[in-house]
Amino acid sequence: MIVSILGGTGEQGPGMALRWAKAGLDVIIGSRQQEKASRVAAELNQELGQDLIKGMANPEAAAVAEVIALTVPFSAHRSTIESVKEYLSGKIFIDVCVPLDENNPRKMHLPPAGSATEEAQEILGESVKVVAAFQNVSAHALRHHEHPIDCDVLVCGNDKEARQTVLQLVEQMGLHAVDAGLAYNARIVESLTALLIGLNIRYKVKSSGIRITGLPT
Amino acid sequence: MIVSILGGTGEQGPGMALRWAKAGLDVIIGSRQQEKASRVAAELNQELGQDLIKGMANPEAAAVAEVIALTVPFSAHRSTIESVKEYLSGKIFIDVCVPLDENNPRKMHLPPAGSATEEAQEILGESVKVVAAFQNVSAHALRHHEHPIDCDVLVCGNDKEARQTVLQLVEQMGLHAVDAGLAYNARIVESLTALLIGLNIRYKVKSSGIRITGLPT
Repeated sequence: MIVSILGGTGEQGPGMALRWAKAGLDVIIGSRQQEKASRVAAELNQELGQDLIKGMANPEAAAVAEVIALTVPFSAHRSTIESVKEYLSGKIFIDVCVPLDENNPRKMHLPPAGSATEEAQEILGESVKVVAAFQNVSAHALRHHEHPIDCDVLVCGNDKEARQTVLQLVEQMGLHAVDAGLAYNARIVESLTALLIGLNIRYKVKSSGIRITGLPT
Repeated sequence: MIVSILGGTGEQGPGMALRWAKAGLDVIIGSRQQEKASRVAAELNQELGQDLIKGMANPEAAAVAEVIALTVPFSAHRSTIESVKEYLSGKIFIDVCVPLDENNPRKMHLPPAGSATEEAQEILGESVKVVAAFQNVSAHALRHHEHPIDCDVLVCGNDKEARQTVLQLVEQMGLHAVDAGLAYNARIVESLTALLIGLNIRYKVKSSGIRITGLPT
């Protein structure tokens, strides 16, 4: 399976790329600048000791992949989605963005649609299967790809089959995935990130996370 | 310390009362009907084999306690707070209410103030120290007071000292408490309950919960 990570040169992208590449997926890092994408891909390949990750411009990365993840800061959420919209029809779009308050990352600034995920679905229309995932996993923890991550990944979106595919993609990274239901839950999942950022600051740690308890094992 | 649980004959109240009574606190169950409060208190005392819990009408229960917890359904949130407001000045008020959508408990219906907790603070004014806690712990798990609970309690509110007191009250119940910061985080903490109710339904369990990972032990 080909998975592209748009904005993949940023915070979460490299960790996600490394973990998916190690799981045997064809991973593409997308960036606004193709050169930057290629440079980061080369750095990650060097770290892996294998040529597993490619770098492309965002639209090209979106065009060739079956699953497209978006990891840009929320300020670039709408513009990036619009720039690749034509390549996404019928595909799975994993929204990793969190609409944090730009003046205080411990607070949310939820968009009118309710959440980044719901905004993405609104922009892309029903032909694209938008699924939220990875919002609560710290970039720091993701990047240390040799280490397990003590954080569940809540997965939500309106297309059950697409959700199932993303649940599997999360598990392939070695993370535990939880089916968090429909897209409207993304506002809760995204908001949790602001709470965790607050905990990181208050408790002076880098990677607080969450686990869901009481589910069947 | 005297702790009253208003609406304590409902879902969460009995479990909280049993656990606090076992920890040596003076616990009062409050209800709109004094007889009902006394009856439930008597049942719980029988279960404990000791006379530790009293039953009173809500206003009386609020008047004699130093810490007052509210566990009514959200539909009775404002009216119950207004009915005891005159007895709360200078005290700690623990809001346990969750503003779920009445037609779908997997969804929130957040009040204009942002959360039940912020609404309570708005109604009560600055002389009352409103703190959110216990929203994510299932009533079912609380009630089985012989069993440990696999769920953290996120505690938030604007008064740091009051938050500290509530953190300790949570720990006295044998639960792990996490300092979740200011009152605006209550909208996240309360919303998590809707997510957990959805997980209970989707995974066919009774008591899904959350743990915060990555904090200092």
